[in-house]
Amino acid sequence: MVLDTWYSNVKRSDDLFNSLTDDQLQIEIAPGKNRVIYVLANLAAVHDKIMPFLELGDQMYPQLYEDFVNKPDKAVAEVPPANELRAYWKNIHTVLAKHFESMQADDWFQKHTSVTIEDFSKEPHRNKLNIIISRTNHLSYHLGQLVIAE
Amino acid sequence: MVLDTWYSNVKRSDDLFNSLTDDQLQIEIAPGKNRVIYVLANLAAVHDKIMPFLELGDQMYPQLYEDFVNKPDKAVAEVPPANELRAYWKNIHTVLAKHFESMQADDWFQKHTSVTIEDFSKEPHRNKLNIIISRTNHLSYHLGQLVIAE
Repeated sequence: MVLDTWYSNVKRSDDLFNSLTDDQLQIEIAPGKNRVIYVLANLAAVHDKIMPFLELGDQMYPQLYEDFVNKPDKAVAEVPPANELRAYWKNIHTVLAKHFESMQADDWFQKHTSVTIEDFSKEPHRNKLNIIISRTNHLSYHLGQLVIAE
Repeated sequence: MVLDTWYSNVKRSDDLFNSLTDDQLQIEIAPGKNRVIYVLANLAAVHDKIMPFLELGDQMYPQLYEDFVNKPDKAVAEVPPANELRAYWKNIHTVLAKHFESMQADDWFQKHTSVTIEDFSKEPHRNKLNIIISRTNHLSYHLGQLVIAE
């Protein structure tokens, strides 16, 4: 159920980004708010970071996280070209889907990597599945904003 | 985990609506988009509708659903006063929380009321918990929009 919701939100985001031209990515969602391209880069970075959280490997584009999660929009002089960001976005979700397919039901209830063994024993809900619940809601949150820009 | 995410999103929405004056509820999220008060009424209606979906009782404010889910913003001449909507919102979540507390783990994996027994046997993920996953994401989606209006 959780993964179904994840995939359907990724699909909606895919469709939305694909419907926008490179020029449209440059507009602000609302006056003075984040640009669409910042949201694309932020979401790509947050999803890339799922890999180390779930022990699936390293981030593929760690610089993205540095520039588009740790920093607000317009703080970075050099935003990657739209076609590169679109490729990162696609690649991240292809790799994640491959990993998710090979995970067993039990794996999802193991602790994620940002919680200690001690804390996990007290708070067993801090598991890998919970990362997906949280990231899916983060994605929905930004999807709601992106449709305003459309 | 699913309920934790639900409650934390409801809390965020509560805080956000409480931070806005009645006048601020009247503004549009972005030029030409839904007004904040429409989103409040829409969310209240969708959450009220959780009750029949989960066999917890009837909707308390069925007119809300008719006016703010089945119809777009500005289609209804008479929007309830802000203080009434705030009271509905609060009441719906108080009643839902009371119901949720008395539900057992197994209850969440039973079918919800908008799926037939036959379909449920083929698609067992269409259960009550899935309603909460879906409504939590719907709430996140609109939360993302509401912070733009803030």
